[in-house]
Amino acid sequence: MSILIKNGHIVTAAENFIGDVYIEADQIAAIGKNLSYQADQVIDATGKLIFPGGIDPHVHLDMPFMGTSSSDDYSTGTLAALHGGTTMVIDFILQTQGDTLHNALHTWQGKSAGKAYGDYSYHMAVTDFNENTRQEVIQMIHEEGITSFKTFMAYKGALMIDDGQMVDLMQTVRDNGGLVTVHATNGDMIDKLIAKHRAEGKLSPLYHYLSQPEITESEASARFSDMTFYTDCPGYIVHMTCEGALNAVREATKRNQRVFVETCIQYLILDASLYEKDFDGAKWVMSPPLREKKDQASLWAGINQGLVNVVGTDHCPFMWEQKLMGKDDFSKIPNGHPAIEHRMELLYSEGVDKGKISLNKFVEVSSTNAAKIFGMYPKKGTLAIGSDADIVIFDPNKKHTLSVDTHHMNVDYSAYEGWEVTGKTETVILRGKVAIDKGEVHIEKGYGQFVKRGATSVTA
Amino acid sequence: MSILIKNGHIVTAAENFIGDVYIEADQIAAIGKNLSYQADQVIDATGKLIFPGGIDPHVHLDMPFMGTSSSDDYSTGTLAALHGGTTMVIDFILQTQGDTLHNALHTWQGKSAGKAYGDYSYHMAVTDFNENTRQEVIQMIHEEGITSFKTFMAYKGALMIDDGQMVDLMQTVRDNGGLVTVHATNGDMIDKLIAKHRAEGKLSPLYHYLSQPEITESEASARFSDMTFYTDCPGYIVHMTCEGALNAVREATKRNQRVFVETCIQYLILDASLYEKDFDGAKWVMSPPLREKKDQASLWAGINQGLVNVVGTDHCPFMWEQKLMGKDDFSKIPNGHPAIEHRMELLYSEGVDKGKISLNKFVEVSSTNAAKIFGMYPKKGTLAIGSDADIVIFDPNKKHTLSVDTHHMNVDYSAYEGWEVTGKTETVILRGKVAIDKGEVHIEKGYGQFVKRGATSVTA
Amino acid sequence: MSILIKNGHIVTAAENFIGDVYIEADQIAAIGKNLSYQADQVIDATGKLIFPGGIDPHVHLDMPFMGTSSSDDYSTGTLAALHGGTTMVIDFILQTQGDTLHNALHTWQGKSAGKAYGDYSYHMAVTDFNENTRQEVIQMIHEEGITSFKTFMAYKGALMIDDGQMVDLMQTVRDNGGLVTVHATNGDMIDKLIAKHRAEGKLSPLYHYLSQPEITESEASARFSDMTFYTDCPGYIVHMTCEGALNAVREATKRNQRVFVETCIQYLILDASLYEKDFDGAKWVMSPPLREKKDQASLWAGINQGLVNVVGTDHCPFMWEQKLMGKDDFSKIPNGHPAIEHRMELLYSEGVDKGKISLNKFVEVSSTNAAKIFGMYPKKGTLAIGSDADIVIFDPNKKHTLSVDTHHMNVDYSAYEGWEVTGKTETVILRGKVAIDKGEVHIEKGYGQFVKRGATSVTA
Amino acid sequence: MSILIKNGHIVTAAENFIGDVYIEADQIAAIGKNLSYQADQVIDATGKLIFPGGIDPHVHLDMPFMGTSSSDDYSTGTLAALHGGTTMVIDFILQTQGDTLHNALHTWQGKSAGKAYGDYSYHMAVTDFNENTRQEVIQMIHEEGITSFKTFMAYKGALMIDDGQMVDLMQTVRDNGGLVTVHATNGDMIDKLIAKHRAEGKLSPLYHYLSQPEITESEASARFSDMTFYTDCPGYIVHMTCEGALNAVREATKRNQRVFVETCIQYLILDASLYEKDFDGAKWVMSPPLREKKDQASLWAGINQGLVNVVGTDHCPFMWEQKLMGKDDFSKIPNGHPAIEHRMELLYSEGVDKGKISLNKFVEVSSTNAAKIFGMYPKKGTLAIGSDADIVIFDPNKKHTLSVDTHHMNVDYSAYEGWEVTGKTETVILRGKVAIDKGEVHIEKGYGQFVKRGATSVTA
Repeated sequence: MSILIKNGHIVTAAENFIGDVYIEADQIAAIGKNLSYQADQVIDATGKLIFPGGIDPHVHLDMPFMGTSSSDDYSTGTLAALHGGTTMVIDFILQTQGDTLHNALHTWQGKSAGKAYGDYSYHMAVTDFNENTRQEVIQMIHEEGITSFKTFMAYKGALMIDDGQMVDLMQTVRDNGGLVTVHATNGDMIDKLIAKHRAEGKLSPLYHYLSQPEITESEASARFSDMTFYTDCPGYIVHMTCEGALNAVREATKRNQRVFVETCIQYLILDASLYEKDFDGAKWVMSPPLREKKDQASLWAGINQGLVNVVGTDHCPFMWEQKLMGKDDFSKIPNGHPAIEHRMELLYSEGVDKGKISLNKFVEVSSTNAAKIFGMYPKKGTLAIGSDADIVIFDPNKKHTLSVDTHHMNVDYSAYEGWEVTGKTETVILRGKVAIDKGEVHIEKGYGQFVKRGATSVTA
Repeated sequence: MSILIKNGHIVTAAENFIGDVYIEADQIAAIGKNLSYQADQVIDATGKLIFPGGIDPHVHLDMPFMGTSSSDDYSTGTLAALHGGTTMVIDFILQTQGDTLHNALHTWQGKSAGKAYGDYSYHMAVTDFNENTRQEVIQMIHEEGITSFKTFMAYKGALMIDDGQMVDLMQTVRDNGGLVTVHATNGDMIDKLIAKHRAEGKLSPLYHYLSQPEITESEASARFSDMTFYTDCPGYIVHMTCEGALNAVREATKRNQRVFVETCIQYLILDASLYEKDFDGAKWVMSPPLREKKDQASLWAGINQGLVNVVGTDHCPFMWEQKLMGKDDFSKIPNGHPAIEHRMELLYSEGVDKGKISLNKFVEVSSTNAAKIFGMYPKKGTLAIGSDADIVIFDPNKKHTLSVDTHHMNVDYSAYEGWEVTGKTETVILRGKVAIDKGEVHIEKGYGQFVKRGATSVTA
Repeated sequence: MSILIKNGHIVTAAENFIGDVYIEADQIAAIGKNLSYQADQVIDATGKLIFPGGIDPHVHLDMPFMGTSSSDDYSTGTLAALHGGTTMVIDFILQTQGDTLHNALHTWQGKSAGKAYGDYSYHMAVTDFNENTRQEVIQMIHEEGITSFKTFMAYKGALMIDDGQMVDLMQTVRDNGGLVTVHATNGDMIDKLIAKHRAEGKLSPLYHYLSQPEITESEASARFSDMTFYTDCPGYIVHMTCEGALNAVREATKRNQRVFVETCIQYLILDASLYEKDFDGAKWVMSPPLREKKDQASLWAGINQGLVNVVGTDHCPFMWEQKLMGKDDFSKIPNGHPAIEHRMELLYSEGVDKGKISLNKFVEVSSTNAAKIFGMYPKKGTLAIGSDADIVIFDPNKKHTLSVDTHHMNVDYSAYEGWEVTGKTETVILRGKVAIDKGEVHIEKGYGQFVKRGATSVTA
Repeated sequence: MSILIKNGHIVTAAENFIGDVYIEADQIAAIGKNLSYQADQVIDATGKLIFPGGIDPHVHLDMPFMGTSSSDDYSTGTLAALHGGTTMVIDFILQTQGDTLHNALHTWQGKSAGKAYGDYSYHMAVTDFNENTRQEVIQMIHEEGITSFKTFMAYKGALMIDDGQMVDLMQTVRDNGGLVTVHATNGDMIDKLIAKHRAEGKLSPLYHYLSQPEITESEASARFSDMTFYTDCPGYIVHMTCEGALNAVREATKRNQRVFVETCIQYLILDASLYEKDFDGAKWVMSPPLREKKDQASLWAGINQGLVNVVGTDHCPFMWEQKLMGKDDFSKIPNGHPAIEHRMELLYSEGVDKGKISLNKFVEVSSTNAAKIFGMYPKKGTLAIGSDADIVIFDPNKKHTLSVDTHHMNVDYSAYEGWEVTGKTETVILRGKVAIDKGEVHIEKGYGQFVKRGATSVTA
């Protein structure tokens, strides 16, 4: 099986030119001008962008939470992702405190086996680090190809580890070529603020926001940077939302340190004024919460400064009925919002089309950097000879409107209802096969594969 | 004319894979696996790196200085550059205070016409900014393709402009899509320290170093950052040497600002202990001077942080007899050292081979970023379809030793005598033509072309 | 002659209690409870504050400017000061570029001789530093008791010295136990902005403000801090107005440096909205200009942090007719505003009465710190045994309104017209003599003396 | 009873002059030149310094620790303090987790009742903050005159509260006019490092030091500053040791914040090289540990910058036999060292006599600031009319040598054995009574009183 894509505007993190791409089996075999291969299928991409399939390194599929589960499973979630040009996701395995990493791995393997349309990998969330876990961490890296370890500085009693466990984990991870990622907010402060607001009868979604002030995130981001500095372990802060947290990382550059930073599409384009809409604000109840315009400006600048490396989603959808669990108490609203399908198009529309970032930067933060940081490059994350043929053919001029009526995610509202987007995913190729074409699905459930990963490199 | 390079390890700022490159006329036409083109010439690159021709954006060829001239002219300089894998340089035109930019341009066109082996462009040094100059700046950008303007915060009475002229120039350059570059040291402080040392009879090369303490550079770098912030003009600091200056740029990131930074190969690998060698230290008398080990560490970290964008040379060689002009007075030693030929190999050997930077980063700072920042991308600076076929085939394992006996620069000593290097430029292709192959020159004097440039983009 | 002040609320920079003060001749002889001295005069201070006479270290009396002179001379200026509780001022001698410091000193001695009501000293403004000036600086310190040297980073061609002269001056001053003070704004940038605004026909007082943006001051404050750090010379920034400049000094603390900071009363309580009043804004045309509310907040915080040490006035009044010189061009408005009389009362009312600063801090920044920094302590600046009996008896509750109708400064408008003040100077004693009592003057012109000063101490 | 001290060199935080002090009953009644009171006792202080009795706000007397107790009780400890010129101490009451503040108060009242020679107060250490504790905190402030609340960010399971409890406590304390003090080190990190060193068999005192790296303190100091900023509660960091922690406070000044800082005498003059002396290093096993020369330089600079406000001791002596509990395991060495007697003399000798700080600053950081911050001013902390007559008469020239043979602390070694000191406490007056004179004790056990305290003021 071979595909020849003709005359597209080819973009990678570094290149930007008109040409053809020739795919043989599951890999890219040639890139050139007027390529003359006899392909099984020829796609005319004149006027279209051709870029690497998006990688969303922060999603929660079929995630248990507060007695329910996020509403997209591996099937609906990865398919919605494909519709939006994201060919791979990294989900989070959550260790149960007191239980093993391996048991958690088996649980998540059960969730994904035979279900995924798109490719996927796992981060392993370490919520209970002890001597047994240490051995498991080493096995995860060397045997399972799971090389990134998620930690929580919040959610005490469920997910949080303390700073002692953190540095201990970091030393093990560093010695074995892995990476520590973190939910960097001060959970103890937040728990207290939540309790205070509840005690005062302040129960609307607005108080979710007010229980997680910027300082809870900037403090924890600084502390995490200190610990990675001390341990010399590669570190990665997930879903950064604010100027204060980014400034902590900027300050850390002065000691010759590099901390990787991920933001999410919503923090670049939405703000906290949405919480003023009474319970409708529940649509955007996520942690950390949306912030202010000044924070958006910092994050966009951080992308261009090379200090914000990745744009993910923290996709974690819940049905409106699930959100209603918190109707009378914001602390009972399941956290998360649906975005897995829209990340690439929103980033293109709000970033590239509005002149905030370049095309190269778009590819870098939506795909390439995630592949490099998480040890999948150059198999994933770029258009290069021998790389997996994960390719998006994208119409940069097509305007459309986001809506629950048209999205493919398994959730009964849209967090972006009515949002006008310039640029649309037209054809998506995954490992050499057309997966999506003009909205039609051409692959079967289960086509998606687990991707074993290698070591990160801070010099990448 | 066509060339097919087979089975090389192809590297760009973002890619890294094994493949073939097919060149048609002066451009790259295809990149792939097992390309089957019938080429006029086939090169087997098995085991070799293939990367974009280096761009050295900071050289001084045939530069008048203190009544003499730098010893490499466009002919010897660009040829030596080619020998080392640098296919393009950007030289500096120096406006004479009181005279016009156009007259200076004509002078430099005279120096380069018919002489260059490699490609070249000019930065325009504005040393006298007034209403007439303002019009000339606009013409340089729109008519001559000279879009970067060099300024000096030192050398009062010869090259320096004051801060008022600086912001005025910045506003004009910003409005016209250009870039302001700067020699950022506090010239007034330095002049006073030189005078003081001379008055005290402290005349050896060591006092050249002691007349330019770190603070003279960190101060000016902070000041320049302030001015670019105020004017919102793209700014670029040339030849940064030290932690203090880099920290000024790091601090500026907190106001969502981006200032481009160039360091030079010598600041990454040499240090000020060389000035303790009596007059032999004259070999490294340059401005700013070499610094300390801590500064090297900061600059390497800055490269990986994405905050140091370019590695140049500030190549400005003088014969030993010329250096001897300052035998009895460091302030009469012509400033500069020969490095145009060694930049790529030293950066590979000390950076990539020693694990300090990745191959992608090597290409980014030795070629791609300069092309992007200075408005020549994607014609120059990468291996992409339609780009100029400026290509280096590099043996990453070959060890050799730098020496005046073997170098091609027109200077009778080496600043790196006896330095052992891992990795050697083997074949250099310039616009589709083999220019250098195993030390043999295959092009004529005058083959090098002037490259018109476009606007920089701070979102690049 | 002796005076016994009974039952006052005695305040110094460190003390705060109820008691009596006994004055013998010109000095304080005893402080206590129920002192039983037989005094020539007994003053009942029940319910009143007793604190050290204010020291205003930043005034311009009879200062030549733009072909005219500030409207208060040593007579009217020091008398108005006394009315407001300021018993001593430090005026600025301005060296004429090309002329000597001694000639300037003689000129100013002529202005003050026999005229002053209150005590005074001089700062020497060095506007032309060369080998002759160096010798004069040394003489000023050791022979004339003039130990503080004012420099200008603005007003090129008239007052400004360059950074080379600055570090040179600093080294001489440091070696001789003096202090360098500075008008820290980037004059070159400001000159260019003024010229630009004028060229654009933007000529109202608002453009005075817009020609001196915050960055011109924060930049120069950082640069001055760098130079004092390099030279290890005691440094003092006059009339600081803004957060950016204060943050430069705060940042400098990290290198274990201390730079003294003076703000002026107007920067603590007025803001730039006054420039929107058309030509009426000319009343507040001064350099640097008034800033924003955020800057006021920073300066008040800086006082409590111990990083803003002194509150002066930069008193430099001009009659309205003089201000009208700039009716059609802001750059022709004589710079300065009248405040010498109101500093203490405004600082008490807006600072102490509104709870922003403590009584001790009020004394510290209005008197004691100036005395210490400028080498007059403990003769001046506190209530201590053996100190000059310069004492203010102050009614903390008395409300009154500032107005041109009631002020004593020689200027035909008030910059604080209608301002309601809580707290009023009731009696002022200067060197043991009641100078002012309930608005009546009890001393003769010429009673004021020149105060020779000693070295500053950065450990003071 | 009355005392007249004649002709001394009187020093307060702001004054510095020659004069007499007259004491009536327990207060200062007059200060003056040639005072003529008929006193019961006249002391000639010619050539001597007279300054306020020292206040050591950080001591641990009779403190239970690891199954033993610190070897000085209220009797021996306060008497040793008096010998060294410290007339008042503030001890720490430690709440037992699970028990009440009142029970802890009663325990400590039992320890001090009838035993103290010098005056004292308590800080209340809150180790378990809940709704009941909240009410007790309010009572402590308003009923018991205990207005400062100590918190621990280390010693989990025994003393540490988490960040949620911390902000909760801060809000209550702020609302009631109190102050939160903190042991600011990251306990979780430290516990992990201790465990790691023990597991590796690294058991000597050196590993006590290596288990508490600078970053554990700078991190926690930054975090505490963040929390006080968020809650707007007055905050005070005890026993700061290092540049990193001080820089956190310096950085916080940029948001107009003020955090009070205490260092201890040992951190100013001793360094970590002492830990290289095998088990002899146990003498200086304290938390945080001694640091480096660079840290001493920062702390001295911080004092002069006004950012380090207080010098205490953290006096917590243990007999050598007690120290030997940790002979085979540094983690079992009781923490603390004896210094209560030497603080004033060492600070004078190393600070004033060596020119690092002024006499005023000496008084400010050894007495006045503690009195102001902890709500005892002007009763304590200065020489003012109506203040308690707590006075030290000090011979600034007398040289002596510290030794276990001569000290009065109940501990069988000296941490300063052989240290040569310039300046000696000669006479100590406490509330109008000569307590110590030339080494002789003139008061009875139990003379010392508990001092009720009021609110702190951040504008003090």
